[in-house]
Amino acid sequence: MRKNNRPIGVFDSGLGGLTVLRQLRRILPRERFIYFGDTARVPYGSKSPETVRRYSAEIVRFLVKKNVKMVVVACNTSSALALKDLKKKFPIPICGVVEPGAALALRKSISGRIGIIGTEATIKSQIYPITLKALAGDRPIEVFGLATPLLVPLVEEGITAGPIANLIIKNYLGHLWRMEIDVLILGCTHYPLLKNTIRKILDKNIVLVDSALAVAEKVKDILAKNNLAIEHGRKLSPEFYVTDSSEKFRQLGQRFLREKISDVHLIKFL
Amino acid sequence: MRKNNRPIGVFDSGLGGLTVLRQLRRILPRERFIYFGDTARVPYGSKSPETVRRYSAEIVRFLVKKNVKMVVVACNTSSALALKDLKKKFPIPICGVVEPGAALALRKSISGRIGIIGTEATIKSQIYPITLKALAGDRPIEVFGLATPLLVPLVEEGITAGPIANLIIKNYLGHLWRMEIDVLILGCTHYPLLKNTIRKILDKNIVLVDSALAVAEKVKDILAKNNLAIEHGRKLSPEFYVTDSSEKFRQLGQRFLREKISDVHLIKFL
Repeated sequence: MRKNNRPIGVFDSGLGGLTVLRQLRRILPRERFIYFGDTARVPYGSKSPETVRRYSAEIVRFLVKKNVKMVVVACNTSSALALKDLKKKFPIPICGVVEPGAALALRKSISGRIGIIGTEATIKSQIYPITLKALAGDRPIEVFGLATPLLVPLVEEGITAGPIANLIIKNYLGHLWRMEIDVLILGCTHYPLLKNTIRKILDKNIVLVDSALAVAEKVKDILAKNNLAIEHGRKLSPEFYVTDSSEKFRQLGQRFLREKISDVHLIKFL
Repeated sequence: MRKNNRPIGVFDSGLGGLTVLRQLRRILPRERFIYFGDTARVPYGSKSPETVRRYSAEIVRFLVKKNVKMVVVACNTSSALALKDLKKKFPIPICGVVEPGAALALRKSISGRIGIIGTEATIKSQIYPITLKALAGDRPIEVFGLATPLLVPLVEEGITAGPIANLIIKNYLGHLWRMEIDVLILGCTHYPLLKNTIRKILDKNIVLVDSALAVAEKVKDILAKNNLAIEHGRKLSPEFYVTDSSEKFRQLGQRFLREKISDVHLIKFL
């Protein structure tokens, strides 16, 4: 296969990364994609850094065997904890979601007071405050992180609106109300699926930053810089790999990707 | 080591099985216990039967290598989906939680209208209606099953009371209100930790059945019948094995076991 015609690998702990895949397909309609959801081991956000690094490396090894030309880590927890390690281990371009999301948040924020919600592991890693401060340079900013561990299970169960989602989100975001933020980063690729519910609860002046679109733009850049963009090609369906229960993935995934999901393969790591 | 002095293996997907371990230690204070929590791969209840069977067999293989004299499957999902398979594969006594819980529910129910809440996988398996009907014989009973998938994530996050737990449980149990049950089986070993919250929401006349105590009595029987009960021995702390993040397990586990947890080992299945 010609070097540039190879697919792009995209992975997440479960369904959340489909929000990134959707934007990638919009921005790069001619590229081929392989999506990997580690549905047997979701959620990653409550796991230890060592385990997240081990799982992430297993997946990238699998994608490399599938001959991908680059990898998108469409999972904030894995981007926070495993990206450095993955870049050392594998000799292809690897793009995480944290830096593109942080850069977008800085562009949107006027006051420099930025909130971020994510999994326990992402928040604990301090990756967002560190990245935001590095990108901000001399500009003074304040970052307020909040772990919202129930939101991934909610989304994985397909509960993205209604009284339960409302109460859980209201309860979490109450902690951010007094911080007078003007931007809230959705620091987990599952959260864009709760955007409408979050939108209703938050002050209307607060901008919600979903990194998916920023990631897609970044991937486009990386392909161009590395001469890896596909030359000819037509929009094909992505290939999907999951570690558990491909039926549930297909059903919920279609709602999240807003496209039909047909080509799902079950993979076992032994 | 003398045959009867060997430990009893107890396993669950995560923390829930500690509710069973607590009763086992009360009823069998002189026995030694090894507890295994598959905390890297929790929850089991949203996974496919094949995956739950594979994970369960891996754990029992590990426990058998640790020279246990019997195994308690302190997880309803694994009992529902893997027990038969485990009994075929391993030549030691293996006790699940479904049958003892179902037998207790039948003894407590006067009307024969029995509700059961459990994980998606447990409810889908129909194991409770099948077991209850087999045990009831000619007695007419009606069984109402309800999947309550968010309750395991709740407990694993340590949220066992307060407004979020209240609303989620109220929302689920609303579906059972019209069924006029007189017994509700807590068909997941995580749920006893939500007992007080469930108690407040349900009609006071409905008996909550937590299978932990019934399981402990059953284990006592099995040991006696197989001449496996320990002869001499003093109360020792259990040994703990987990697949992820032993610190979190220790912290939350102590609340659930109501005992100090000190001896936690991290195990990797590769």
